[in-house]
Amino acid sequence: MKELNVGMIGYGFMGRTHSNAFSQVNHFFDVPYQPVLKTLCARNAERARDFAARWGYERVETDWRRVVESPDIDLVDIASPNDTHAEIAIAAARAGKMVMCEKPLGRNAAESEAMVKAVESAGVRNMVWYNYRRVPAVMLAKQLIDEGRLGRIFHYRAKFLQDWTISSDLPQGGEGLWRLDAAVAGSGVTGDLLAHCIDTAMWLNGGIAEVTATTETFIKSRRHNLTGKVEPVGIDDASLFLARFGNGSLATFEATRYARGHKALYTLEINGENASIIWDLHDLHRLQYFDHRDESRLRGWRSIHITDSDHPYMKHWWVPGLQIGYEHTFIHQAADFLSAAAEGTNAAPTFRDALRTDYVTDAVLESAGNRSWVKVGPLEAK
Amino acid sequence: MKELNVGMIGYGFMGRTHSNAFSQVNHFFDVPYQPVLKTLCARNAERARDFAARWGYERVETDWRRVVESPDIDLVDIASPNDTHAEIAIAAARAGKMVMCEKPLGRNAAESEAMVKAVESAGVRNMVWYNYRRVPAVMLAKQLIDEGRLGRIFHYRAKFLQDWTISSDLPQGGEGLWRLDAAVAGSGVTGDLLAHCIDTAMWLNGGIAEVTATTETFIKSRRHNLTGKVEPVGIDDASLFLARFGNGSLATFEATRYARGHKALYTLEINGENASIIWDLHDLHRLQYFDHRDESRLRGWRSIHITDSDHPYMKHWWVPGLQIGYEHTFIHQAADFLSAAAEGTNAAPTFRDALRTDYVTDAVLESAGNRSWVKVGPLEAK
Amino acid sequence: MKELNVGMIGYGFMGRTHSNAFSQVNHFFDVPYQPVLKTLCARNAERARDFAARWGYERVETDWRRVVESPDIDLVDIASPNDTHAEIAIAAARAGKMVMCEKPLGRNAAESEAMVKAVESAGVRNMVWYNYRRVPAVMLAKQLIDEGRLGRIFHYRAKFLQDWTISSDLPQGGEGLWRLDAAVAGSGVTGDLLAHCIDTAMWLNGGIAEVTATTETFIKSRRHNLTGKVEPVGIDDASLFLARFGNGSLATFEATRYARGHKALYTLEINGENASIIWDLHDLHRLQYFDHRDESRLRGWRSIHITDSDHPYMKHWWVPGLQIGYEHTFIHQAADFLSAAAEGTNAAPTFRDALRTDYVTDAVLESAGNRSWVKVGPLEAK
Amino acid sequence: MKELNVGMIGYGFMGRTHSNAFSQVNHFFDVPYQPVLKTLCARNAERARDFAARWGYERVETDWRRVVESPDIDLVDIASPNDTHAEIAIAAARAGKMVMCEKPLGRNAAESEAMVKAVESAGVRNMVWYNYRRVPAVMLAKQLIDEGRLGRIFHYRAKFLQDWTISSDLPQGGEGLWRLDAAVAGSGVTGDLLAHCIDTAMWLNGGIAEVTATTETFIKSRRHNLTGKVEPVGIDDASLFLARFGNGSLATFEATRYARGHKALYTLEINGENASIIWDLHDLHRLQYFDHRDESRLRGWRSIHITDSDHPYMKHWWVPGLQIGYEHTFIHQAADFLSAAAEGTNAAPTFRDALRTDYVTDAVLESAGNRSWVKVGPLEAK
Repeated sequence: MKELNVGMIGYGFMGRTHSNAFSQVNHFFDVPYQPVLKTLCARNAERARDFAARWGYERVETDWRRVVESPDIDLVDIASPNDTHAEIAIAAARAGKMVMCEKPLGRNAAESEAMVKAVESAGVRNMVWYNYRRVPAVMLAKQLIDEGRLGRIFHYRAKFLQDWTISSDLPQGGEGLWRLDAAVAGSGVTGDLLAHCIDTAMWLNGGIAEVTATTETFIKSRRHNLTGKVEPVGIDDASLFLARFGNGSLATFEATRYARGHKALYTLEINGENASIIWDLHDLHRLQYFDHRDESRLRGWRSIHITDSDHPYMKHWWVPGLQIGYEHTFIHQAADFLSAAAEGTNAAPTFRDALRTDYVTDAVLESAGNRSWVKVGPLEAK
Repeated sequence: MKELNVGMIGYGFMGRTHSNAFSQVNHFFDVPYQPVLKTLCARNAERARDFAARWGYERVETDWRRVVESPDIDLVDIASPNDTHAEIAIAAARAGKMVMCEKPLGRNAAESEAMVKAVESAGVRNMVWYNYRRVPAVMLAKQLIDEGRLGRIFHYRAKFLQDWTISSDLPQGGEGLWRLDAAVAGSGVTGDLLAHCIDTAMWLNGGIAEVTATTETFIKSRRHNLTGKVEPVGIDDASLFLARFGNGSLATFEATRYARGHKALYTLEINGENASIIWDLHDLHRLQYFDHRDESRLRGWRSIHITDSDHPYMKHWWVPGLQIGYEHTFIHQAADFLSAAAEGTNAAPTFRDALRTDYVTDAVLESAGNRSWVKVGPLEAK
Repeated sequence: MKELNVGMIGYGFMGRTHSNAFSQVNHFFDVPYQPVLKTLCARNAERARDFAARWGYERVETDWRRVVESPDIDLVDIASPNDTHAEIAIAAARAGKMVMCEKPLGRNAAESEAMVKAVESAGVRNMVWYNYRRVPAVMLAKQLIDEGRLGRIFHYRAKFLQDWTISSDLPQGGEGLWRLDAAVAGSGVTGDLLAHCIDTAMWLNGGIAEVTATTETFIKSRRHNLTGKVEPVGIDDASLFLARFGNGSLATFEATRYARGHKALYTLEINGENASIIWDLHDLHRLQYFDHRDESRLRGWRSIHITDSDHPYMKHWWVPGLQIGYEHTFIHQAADFLSAAAEGTNAAPTFRDALRTDYVTDAVLESAGNRSWVKVGPLEAK
Repeated sequence: MKELNVGMIGYGFMGRTHSNAFSQVNHFFDVPYQPVLKTLCARNAERARDFAARWGYERVETDWRRVVESPDIDLVDIASPNDTHAEIAIAAARAGKMVMCEKPLGRNAAESEAMVKAVESAGVRNMVWYNYRRVPAVMLAKQLIDEGRLGRIFHYRAKFLQDWTISSDLPQGGEGLWRLDAAVAGSGVTGDLLAHCIDTAMWLNGGIAEVTATTETFIKSRRHNLTGKVEPVGIDDASLFLARFGNGSLATFEATRYARGHKALYTLEINGENASIIWDLHDLHRLQYFDHRDESRLRGWRSIHITDSDHPYMKHWWVPGLQIGYEHTFIHQAADFLSAAAEGTNAAPTFRDALRTDYVTDAVLESAGNRSWVKVGPLEAK
């Protein structure tokens, strides 16, 4: 098994999930690479050293350029805040490294287009960590749709509901709270939460043609951790849109951090002529499935406990009835990336796939601004 | 349509459900009889008059013998406390009336045997109001079992959990609380709640062969409403037993009024070789169904919303998705009784059917007393 | 108790629910009127006679004018198709009758304005049967909101999902299917289903200020039962909109008859600063409630089984744990109407209240047509 | 951080969960030891080498005595079939090693007593992997009970339902199926599944005083993988018992591998005077909690999503709303063991704690044999 040297940028929430994925992938999957946690890079040297020690990284850097330039690094994995994605990814691609990037790709489609161009010009392996595709229940939904089980699709619904920013005492900016700082994050829930919903939706149901949206910032100003001053809040706290897919189906999408009672409730539903599917992140190991072809008096939503060996990815884990959790989705994605890379291909979603989501989020923000229906950007037609 | 004159004994909780059944049955079912609420009988004349006025009874009596003897009464319906069942039912049968009796039949199998003898000797129509058989979801379960969908049965589980007697301040005896008075009720939860579970269980799964049980009275003495004194509590507050059915399946049964958080949670589950069923009273319009013959990766418990026209009784009600409630089970039972009576037969459960349940509850109480397995009484073998 | 003579127009689905309400209300509620089912009116004389016999109506008419003109009719209840509402209601009001009307009020706000004018000019008691306000769980939600339990409201979501028109073989028009005929119904799911969602929403959360909507007709033509020809379908099969309420909260609304797996799934959710509420029609006897003021580690959505005597309307029914069903909402509404009428007032929603909903549905249809945000009509500002 | 050299016996299902626990514990918990996967021991040398390579064990042995005797091994972890537990544990204790043992401790209390004696005489750290205590939701239940939230306990219910042995084609014995071989496993579901239920129950609710039980072997003979012949099945397929706890509460316990539709449904419920708790393994990240002290009309079962930082163990994982899975319970247990060991104490359950469970399972099997109530063994009284 060939070793693959990983240079990890960032030690936050996503730095942990990615590091765990590389640590665990060989324990559960037969992949042709053995990832080696070679370098951990972050701006705070002391915290970087602690993180590196915990996860077994061999070296620590505080300047990402040193990672990108290092000849013994095979793969650069970007888990730092959104405003750093483009610059690092482009440099890494130019240096010929494989590049993995946490979602969203750039802060907007313009940044992302440059990133796509960089990896495609360099011909390097690339992937964006839209991890929810690799929830076994979601992957099963994909299989069912691809098999034509649902028939003609009429409706798609997705929500991502959180409640962690309701208090006006919560500051913005800096470590742990950069998602509330528009300059760093690019947008609020549109890029953070809706992007997940959109990535899954287009993967399952094809391209989104047009949208009409509205956004709101409920708390207008918050203390900024870096300046210490109360500053206007630039992000959207809530983002809702109606959409029409290319296949003629209608959709509602909503994301908010002001839905009291929901921590990270990503839900999706798809209604077809013959069958329907519901999934939610709070019980991610279950898929709700309704099949109209069942005998009439015995039709009902099936609550499928996705823990059997014939469920996607599950033969690699435990025995029926024993569920896996959130971080496993990253392990699955690492496994797929490594397997594809060994065959000289990319596992989805590539940078180009992720750019399609940015076209939608850009259209959502544009529609919220101009209060009109907006057609989704150029990639969609290709 | 022929009129059928009803003499109702009792105006309590069950007097209301029975009166409602007779008032509503012709609105929703095509039955050959038009019940007429002729006489309401209860000991408290003033409250009897109020009740009669509300429901449209033509006459009021305070002595049940006047009802039984009245030539224009066709049907005597006994909805009074348990200690009155046997005497009234036997007299009514001897007077040639149809007899309906609220469950349990008698306070024990000895009383019930005399009641069975009376109705069978007189050849009168008779039925016991074990209403839960007529929940549409439960009736659908019966259909599925009778069709052999489940295959060999391995397990049966039933519970009836309440929490309304936990406070030691609650008195016993008298109006509304006679169920806590052993002299009137015969037993506690064994006859009140377990009797329902046992009736359904034997209807669905055949006879119970033997039991081992334990009972408990958590609050040992309570003020008695009739004497005004604190007196020992004679009833069982909780009753649990293991059972073996004649078909070789194993069972757990439990009833209690000390299960905090449950108001009237009657649940049943039956596990067969090929399929399983779960039902509970708190969501009585749903049936949970698992079929192992479903495609492996799509197997799951189906939550069937029992509101379609091909579900038992439901074509008589509203449209799909709109649920009915508790009291409808009595309307269904009245409809079945009247239809059967017009054909000269009895709708189940007859007095004899109900006696089988009393043999089991007697065995449960005996086992709780002598701490040994007890074989169920004589009727079982016939 | 004073008798109140009812003239019922229509014997369809709603004719049954209204007739049942008047039959049952005195059995369970102490109201100052005794409704008398005096006249049943419908165009098909034979079916009208059958219906009248079943429910005990004393007379049958085939021309609604005879009911409106009849001196012994106190109350005209309109349960006939939408295209008849305005003419009958206006005539009844002019004749000085109390008027109850099935929802929606008119086929559009113009019709409804004339109806409001008629009842207000005549000074007659009036009400529209938006029955879901009287689901006990929904009424409890109203109480909690009025008590300020939720705090500032951020989000409202409502859906009404059905799946009964997916087959292209289903015809339109005529008895039982007039809801698919735009000329009779006025609109499709917008007036049929969304109207319910909007009525409840504005009752709970105040007025809707503006909307952006989209509608779709998935099956473009269907055989028409009255002409026998395949004709274009004029109704909307699905209707979705985003809204902003007057109080600043954001909303998504959706109704469709193409959501496979859902029979009549009306759901609503409201997220406040301190607490949130979820309800759905498929389990109408439950309210989901989340209170952020609960101790942190024990916070969770409470599934409240709305069957206790301190829940709205429930002291009139059975005992804790025993649920009621769909038709009870009409009984509650009849009880409230009769109690208010005896005091010379109207129970909500009045014709004027219902007109507000028509302004929103009109705005939805306008927005779907012109693809822009539309401000809601004039009544909202008053 | 001090290294702790682990000698692992067994590479089956439990060998994987234990190896994962030692691999992951330092990534998420601050514990004073760094476990080193030093030696993997199993009888099949080739498979042992594969397993060792996957998990990073430095050495492979096929004779467990070599592990026990090895001077550089600090901890012997027994994950091999039940019939090997006693001999290895006793030898390891005598060699002065820390000893961890997969549950059940021995095949019966006699074996377990010898094991307890060995570790206590040697004064070595010891623990049994009853992992379900470390499910965060179950640990929260323990906290609530210890705080007295529930008040006087009336009822305890536990079930462990599986359906994987219903087919009569399934053989017994040998790799992967030794749990069906009585000689190796000691018993069937009693030791395999009920033991888990009993361990948790006594931890939460104190000692069990007496039991009455019944067991059944539904499939009487199966082909034996080692002999190739059809042989009688010696294990119990199902095991049910009623119990009385020392605190006066009543209980039902049931385990079976014949409950169609349930994969690994371990459920527990405890009803107290003031509050009740429900948990199940199929949704292990949720705790159902009912508190009677909540305002009356708002009482309901709370579905607590156990993913917040103030829930047991959860601050070590992700962010609110993101659930963990089955294997994490072993990581928690490893963390607790290592922390306790560093302080010279044992984390529960110790061998002695686990012996208490064996007294109950022995009593269950005795009661099933002699059909009488059986008092639980001697340790209970100490």
